[in-house]
Amino acid sequence: MIMRIWRRLPAVRLFAPAGHPYHASMSELAHSTPRADGFAMPAEWAPQAQVWMAWPERPDNWRLGGVPAQHAFAHVANAIADHEPVTVGVSHRQYEHARRLLVPRVRLVELTTNDAWMRDIGPTFVRHEGGEVRAVDWIFNAWGGLHGGLYFPWDADDLAAAKIADLERVTRYRAPLVLEGGSIHVDGEGSCLTTEECLLNPNRNPSLNRADIEQHLRDYLGVSTVLWLGAGVCNDETDGHIDNLCCFLRPGVVALAWTDDASDPQSAISRDAYRRLRAMHDARGRQLEIVKLPIPAVPVAMTDEEAREVAHGAGTFARPGGFRLAASYVNFLIVNGAVIVPEFGDANDARAASILAEQFPDRVIRQVPGREILYGGGNVHCITQQQPAGV
Amino acid sequence: MIMRIWRRLPAVRLFAPAGHPYHASMSELAHSTPRADGFAMPAEWAPQAQVWMAWPERPDNWRLGGVPAQHAFAHVANAIADHEPVTVGVSHRQYEHARRLLVPRVRLVELTTNDAWMRDIGPTFVRHEGGEVRAVDWIFNAWGGLHGGLYFPWDADDLAAAKIADLERVTRYRAPLVLEGGSIHVDGEGSCLTTEECLLNPNRNPSLNRADIEQHLRDYLGVSTVLWLGAGVCNDETDGHIDNLCCFLRPGVVALAWTDDASDPQSAISRDAYRRLRAMHDARGRQLEIVKLPIPAVPVAMTDEEAREVAHGAGTFARPGGFRLAASYVNFLIVNGAVIVPEFGDANDARAASILAEQFPDRVIRQVPGREILYGGGNVHCITQQQPAGV
Repeated sequence: MIMRIWRRLPAVRLFAPAGHPYHASMSELAHSTPRADGFAMPAEWAPQAQVWMAWPERPDNWRLGGVPAQHAFAHVANAIADHEPVTVGVSHRQYEHARRLLVPRVRLVELTTNDAWMRDIGPTFVRHEGGEVRAVDWIFNAWGGLHGGLYFPWDADDLAAAKIADLERVTRYRAPLVLEGGSIHVDGEGSCLTTEECLLNPNRNPSLNRADIEQHLRDYLGVSTVLWLGAGVCNDETDGHIDNLCCFLRPGVVALAWTDDASDPQSAISRDAYRRLRAMHDARGRQLEIVKLPIPAVPVAMTDEEAREVAHGAGTFARPGGFRLAASYVNFLIVNGAVIVPEFGDANDARAASILAEQFPDRVIRQVPGREILYGGGNVHCITQQQPAGV
Repeated sequence: MIMRIWRRLPAVRLFAPAGHPYHASMSELAHSTPRADGFAMPAEWAPQAQVWMAWPERPDNWRLGGVPAQHAFAHVANAIADHEPVTVGVSHRQYEHARRLLVPRVRLVELTTNDAWMRDIGPTFVRHEGGEVRAVDWIFNAWGGLHGGLYFPWDADDLAAAKIADLERVTRYRAPLVLEGGSIHVDGEGSCLTTEECLLNPNRNPSLNRADIEQHLRDYLGVSTVLWLGAGVCNDETDGHIDNLCCFLRPGVVALAWTDDASDPQSAISRDAYRRLRAMHDARGRQLEIVKLPIPAVPVAMTDEEAREVAHGAGTFARPGGFRLAASYVNFLIVNGAVIVPEFGDANDARAASILAEQFPDRVIRQVPGREILYGGGNVHCITQQQPAGV
């Protein structure tokens, strides 16, 4: 049914050909690359200026008109705001409602989006050692465009990074690559973690091979080494985003979503990732230390009733009741002085928090309700985008 | 016909009772007053951080879907951007179009509005001598609400100042007064110029008398003396905004819209203003020097054809072809290093520019096409709002 809608629109609007930035006329577009200009993406634990989020509104993805998700997102924003500035983008229609749910120190700005996954639609910020911060604006196609993408259209989401860069008055690079921020993680020392399931998926950049994509990652993230895992978390709708499976905790150390239950479909995925990670060396030549983070003990799914509370329509991904969602504690966000971790009301909530507390001795572990966010297809890391501290 | 629409909405939404700020839940609302906190509105010639504008989009006020006005507004924004930063607010729908018409150094942010009169819907910025800048958010009722107002609804316009204050992270005062920025002018030394036609109009603050209103102006603008003129420019739809009739050029000196043609309906208005100004003393006890600025030699009106190019509907003010519009060179904007002055294709364009050049020897006089802006009901000053330089 998505194909039916698609035929109404001219093809050129949906995929920008590589090398032809879609928003070429927009402000302060740098025609070079971050790497050439001396910029690189800092690690998430580097000092941050603020965190960006967007407001969940679409009733065909979020149950009950989005209200439970709005409370969950506000919980995340308000928690982060205890530690650093937060800006939330919201439509005009929901502006006053969002303002009431967010604490006053959260900045609210108008930002029309198709959905609310700031990690994937927002800019990836890169930083020069001199302190200047710039924005990388990837091409966004809703996790696969017309070949497995999650909704249609995605035009507003593809504009979001440019709008944010302009609002923040930072120079923007339009990268000639379909990519979501959730599909990459960096250690700030030259390494980038990603998955083949996502980055090599023909529904992203069918004309680019692995070497081409690695080169774009080097150019736009300022990294030297790309570390490839295979598949993402079981049933992950994003085609296996790395940020739900594995992330850096600090240089040389990663967290990996894990289960010891060999009968769980996640088991083989995690074991494959483990084997690959053990065999890797990062950009500095280190062998990686792997910290296993359990997945929830009980698979997380919507009930039939909850599933019926989503106003499904053509052009959105339907999650039936009982369908196992890609719940993962790896989907946390590091902020200044804290780590924001989803909880699911599961026996492993406490275990995950305690492992992370050990790994981040200098940060507070803040657990926030992650179930409603997961119902929409992601979690804390997916709905946030850190902007590193600048000069 | 406006009354018909009005009955659908609850009364409480339209007029916030005095003392009950409508957006009380919104961020960083100061519950004091600027005056009590040591803040005052700087004169327009004080150093500015930036100018705010909004994008004209409504096809029931601007002809040809707003396109000629959009070009005129872009001309103004681009001219100001030669001298200082400019931020333009635009709806998502028009974002990319606006981006193409504006030069890259103009910042574009999403901002839903009912129309595009930033002078009247934007915050009035006040400044502390220590350098902090705050925002005054007046109640806005579209120049008279249900009793002569120019459109319905005005909910988005009334939210604009709060959104801007939040975006700029400045503390905001919600003033318990219906007021538009175009109805006041200050000299930065304690004086405020205004008109009785507007501020004493029962369609703004029917429960407040002249003394109450003066007290609010003292409290929220940080002035000590209110200087009252009578009526505004002939046919001014705003109920006689001061910023189309008379403004400060520097402390002790004002410009006044003028005609020597006694048969012109503007003549009696200007003469009355002149007599009042001659009899006044400003906050510092000075008698005012009056510089006469001619109005256009030929009255400016839309042609019948142009009038037909506006998609009129219920709830907007209709301007027939041939109807004399309130053209005035006084409706200029002072920016850092320049004065932005409307031109009408009139014999007096050059005369006005030359008078202003004499009055502003240290600033460039930039004439910009003002006709299309006037067709919508105002001019350069009405569509801009300066934000003074802060710390």
